[in-house]
Amino acid sequence: MSEIEQIDAAGRLRHLLSLEGLERRRIESIIEQAHHYLTPIGAPPARDTILEGVTVVNLFFEPSTRTRASFELAARRLSADVLSLDVNTSSRAKGESVIDTIYTLEAMQADIFVVRDASTGVPASIARHVAPHISVLNAGESDVSHPTQGLLDLMTIQLEKGDPTRLTVAIVGDIRHSRVARSAYEALMHFQVGELRLVGPAELLPDQALFAGASRETNLEKGIAGADVVMALRIQKERFAQMSEIPDPQEYFRRYGLTEERLQAARDDAIVMHPGPMNRGVEIDSATADGKRSVIRRQVTCGTAVRMAVLAQVSEHIRAGHG
Amino acid sequence: MSEIEQIDAAGRLRHLLSLEGLERRRIESIIEQAHHYLTPIGAPPARDTILEGVTVVNLFFEPSTRTRASFELAARRLSADVLSLDVNTSSRAKGESVIDTIYTLEAMQADIFVVRDASTGVPASIARHVAPHISVLNAGESDVSHPTQGLLDLMTIQLEKGDPTRLTVAIVGDIRHSRVARSAYEALMHFQVGELRLVGPAELLPDQALFAGASRETNLEKGIAGADVVMALRIQKERFAQMSEIPDPQEYFRRYGLTEERLQAARDDAIVMHPGPMNRGVEIDSATADGKRSVIRRQVTCGTAVRMAVLAQVSEHIRAGHG
Amino acid sequence: MSEIEQIDAAGRLRHLLSLEGLERRRIESIIEQAHHYLTPIGAPPARDTILEGVTVVNLFFEPSTRTRASFELAARRLSADVLSLDVNTSSRAKGESVIDTIYTLEAMQADIFVVRDASTGVPASIARHVAPHISVLNAGESDVSHPTQGLLDLMTIQLEKGDPTRLTVAIVGDIRHSRVARSAYEALMHFQVGELRLVGPAELLPDQALFAGASRETNLEKGIAGADVVMALRIQKERFAQMSEIPDPQEYFRRYGLTEERLQAARDDAIVMHPGPMNRGVEIDSATADGKRSVIRRQVTCGTAVRMAVLAQVSEHIRAGHG
Repeated sequence: MSEIEQIDAAGRLRHLLSLEGLERRRIESIIEQAHHYLTPIGAPPARDTILEGVTVVNLFFEPSTRTRASFELAARRLSADVLSLDVNTSSRAKGESVIDTIYTLEAMQADIFVVRDASTGVPASIARHVAPHISVLNAGESDVSHPTQGLLDLMTIQLEKGDPTRLTVAIVGDIRHSRVARSAYEALMHFQVGELRLVGPAELLPDQALFAGASRETNLEKGIAGADVVMALRIQKERFAQMSEIPDPQEYFRRYGLTEERLQAARDDAIVMHPGPMNRGVEIDSATADGKRSVIRRQVTCGTAVRMAVLAQVSEHIRAGHG
Repeated sequence: MSEIEQIDAAGRLRHLLSLEGLERRRIESIIEQAHHYLTPIGAPPARDTILEGVTVVNLFFEPSTRTRASFELAARRLSADVLSLDVNTSSRAKGESVIDTIYTLEAMQADIFVVRDASTGVPASIARHVAPHISVLNAGESDVSHPTQGLLDLMTIQLEKGDPTRLTVAIVGDIRHSRVARSAYEALMHFQVGELRLVGPAELLPDQALFAGASRETNLEKGIAGADVVMALRIQKERFAQMSEIPDPQEYFRRYGLTEERLQAARDDAIVMHPGPMNRGVEIDSATADGKRSVIRRQVTCGTAVRMAVLAQVSEHIRAGHG
Repeated sequence: MSEIEQIDAAGRLRHLLSLEGLERRRIESIIEQAHHYLTPIGAPPARDTILEGVTVVNLFFEPSTRTRASFELAARRLSADVLSLDVNTSSRAKGESVIDTIYTLEAMQADIFVVRDASTGVPASIARHVAPHISVLNAGESDVSHPTQGLLDLMTIQLEKGDPTRLTVAIVGDIRHSRVARSAYEALMHFQVGELRLVGPAELLPDQALFAGASRETNLEKGIAGADVVMALRIQKERFAQMSEIPDPQEYFRRYGLTEERLQAARDDAIVMHPGPMNRGVEIDSATADGKRSVIRRQVTCGTAVRMAVLAQVSEHIRAGHG
């Protein structure tokens, strides 16, 4: 993926494919803009006309409610024309390649492709083929990348706990199959997180080559001891090679489920995060999910603000290309 | 459901879950506002900017063309941001609960949830969980409630036949499984309908505890004798506990299908209603459905106007909550 | 279909069901208006407010990405209210007839129905039933008609090669099952195309009664010899009566697949067209599809412009009807 430039020649954000290749100041700039788009729950959402005349196409090859809704609302609130295509049931049925679908939508003068796909490399491959003025945003790619999720997790942590260099963050669960963990890791490493621990059963911890700089722990209590941030992950059933490898929910909850009791090992003011959708009673119990440590809904609100910020930033690239 | 307040502390409509708990003057006020939004077929629809900046999410857990289209057009014509989610195929597939989906969309700053569900209590349960400024509109709930349908039926009857106190209304068909009948009953009872008759095979008449004040009749001719209004219902195949209980269509038509000939038992100027979708040749024949007694399309037009009125009224609650 | 008037009493375009019944000057007028809506790829798309307050309903009974996206973007860019319904999964499931769905949407004050259906006669049947101010646009009808495709093909040919009277056009492939070929034929015949050749295996050439004035050829090299325009078609697997009749892809490519080598039989400056979605390696190889002869993406851009032009023209009929 490194060969795709996410920044254009004039230094503007063009694509958002992974956080790995972005500079820290770019991430700061996106989060700063996201703060402009953040209004309290209950207040009306921020609105802007910055995407007027820009066509955003949501291409979700994997089903999604939350990410699609978040991108769709973000784009609408910035006054874009938004087209959401369920590509599973139409072109692919006729055997068209993804790239031909992209060429077709590009010829209809689409400007931004928001892409989710279950296989690795699809967003980058699209970015490699589109015309120079077009932007590609990765909305979830196999188990490798989900950059807007990484940004919203970082934004939430900064908002709730301040400077990451002084924080201990524990990511708990199915890290092996999680693009959320990968993108959170990349975001936190850019900001020199104090300590990052990966916690879960050995078979769900990632390959040793990945997550350099993070420690690994199979015991939950040890893993979250003294943590400022505890991030639970969903068991990604759809990404296990064999059904038989999927952990038994009750057994998993017994060993790794977050509860108020277990969280006493963490710091008193530790926050609990989850990217959703939650399996209550598996990764987390309801008292914790809805409790005062939980910033799970805050993450969602930050998510829409982050997506507005990313859309707003790439729109400058697009307008320059439009001439 | 009675424990959910549909009216806020300042006397504004907040939720619309059932007509039972609404005061008559509230219903009058909605219908009066709906008349403002009613333009003749062929004329351009009414438009308003009253929902500008308001986010309406359609959550249809049961498939629907007509009600979803009606709410979607109503919200668009009032300038709302509209998001329609087919929740069957996304989050529920991942095991997320309805309430977590709601919390997520609330955190994205959705303001109005339009909910249809096959089970009883889902709209009220959502209303119980949402933040104070948010509104929940019931767009069809199992066999118990479909309040905007009740309002549009009342509005159509008033428009076509005037004051309900002087009218005899016969509801014909599968009343046992019909939320349409329940909401029409509630609306008509608020307005002291002259006489209300439930007509159908004994096994499709409702439990004795329900529909107090209405008479019951298994013979169609007797049931519609002298009626001003004859409302046919669809056989709700999807709500029968056993397939074997579903009436044979030909036999049903022979006994309860509305035809011009049978309608001679009703008043000369009787109108014929049907909530749609119609099974022509089962509940009603085509000559009647398309004939001069039929106000079936009028009902649809009133439906969009009623939904605009309801959306406009709850928007005042939302704006007050937005502060 | 001939009995449906596509032009209203005042001479305005009302429906677009087939090109056969349109006068040449009408087609010229649509294409002329489409040129106004054509901006280069990379430039922002043309926008207009001409459909403000007009409700466009996309009723796709067959799945489609490209045509639905094209109509949806065309309508949005003209400021219409757009409702896209996947009718397969909702009303039809409840047994409602297509015409009752139309009556319902008409009562919700829809103005334009964009209809795709796998069976012959559905768009005309809808046109026969709608109120006088309403327009019906055929977005693909079985194997018989796809008029906006015919218009965009003609527009592309004129744009790239000029006056059709001096051109030799070869349509290659599954002409028997192709509404694209039928509509291209109708468009080209209105403009006295110099020579039109139908090229393909004998079993995929159309009935002798159809395509009067076109020659037939089973040998590809002979069929495209000296051609100015070579239009490849997709094998319409879904329209074969028996699976066993569907050509083997490799064998088909060997005999009829377009390659740079084979195109040497055509004129040096010949263009290559394909309506999409392409089966690369079956009807056409990638070097040709992406090569300098290819105007395939140009066709897509012309398609959106043509659909904007058609929507704009029927909107004049609608506004007159709205009074």
